[in-house]
Amino acid sequence: MTKIATQVTIRHARRDDVGAIVLMLADDALGRARELLDEPLPASYVHAFDRLDADPNIQLVVAQDDSGAVVGCLQLCILPGLSSRGASRALIEDVRVASHCRGRGIGEQLVQWAIAQARARDCRLVELLTHHTRVDAQRFYERLGFQRSHVGMTIRF
Amino acid sequence: MTKIATQVTIRHARRDDVGAIVLMLADDALGRARELLDEPLPASYVHAFDRLDADPNIQLVVAQDDSGAVVGCLQLCILPGLSSRGASRALIEDVRVASHCRGRGIGEQLVQWAIAQARARDCRLVELLTHHTRVDAQRFYERLGFQRSHVGMTIRF
Repeated sequence: MTKIATQVTIRHARRDDVGAIVLMLADDALGRARELLDEPLPASYVHAFDRLDADPNIQLVVAQDDSGAVVGCLQLCILPGLSSRGASRALIEDVRVASHCRGRGIGEQLVQWAIAQARARDCRLVELLTHHTRVDAQRFYERLGFQRSHVGMTIRF
Repeated sequence: MTKIATQVTIRHARRDDVGAIVLMLADDALGRARELLDEPLPASYVHAFDRLDADPNIQLVVAQDDSGAVVGCLQLCILPGLSSRGASRALIEDVRVASHCRGRGIGEQLVQWAIAQARARDCRLVELLTHHTRVDAQRFYERLGFQRSHVGMTIRF
């Protein structure tokens, strides 16, 4: 079955999007173990939203479909630094597409938006970490021009 | 030959450290191709320093030995975000030790400082990308508790 591409609008997330975003973050095996979907949503999520929303170097965006529903998200950080002649670099995190909307080009529109932003902000590098088990994600990013150039290493407390 | 550990002082970088830091960034095969060691140093480095120095979420630190010489550096970014119940995460970048001082525990002191900072700032994750060819670096990070959990993917413009 060929799925039809869904053209989405990408806009900055608002406080009232936090619930929809956390639902998407929780909607896979890795995320389920990490998130907490209590009702009401734990205040830590809203506090985190306020912190990132106040940071001019961080953009949390959502993909919104024609009906106004939030069907994807992505966080982009523009990080100044000395290396590469003082060029900022862009870090992409928390890319998610609602499970019932996958395969429709929504993730691609989000990531292409982020790449365009990185260019507009004079970054010379876009980087991201993807869990080694997310093989589909790695293929997706390769298709968009990313290289598997690095090892992503983490400590989780 | 066993090298003697060098106890260093870790302090925030100042504008007049930029030259020493760029020398370390340029001092390996990957860095040499990316940096520009003109005299005077290209203004883009100093502008980048001013940008990162103004960002409360970014700490560029240097390791200074007893003689006052800068012998290492590390950049730590504390990134707010919604995932993991709204916990910030810490990103370590641009870890370097001057080539004549390697093997003396300086890199370890820098990274342990960053891990302690991440804990103090309530992060639940410390992450970094290391080029797949930097096999020694990967062993070094594993020894400090990092796992090779992710694939690091990049686009360079």
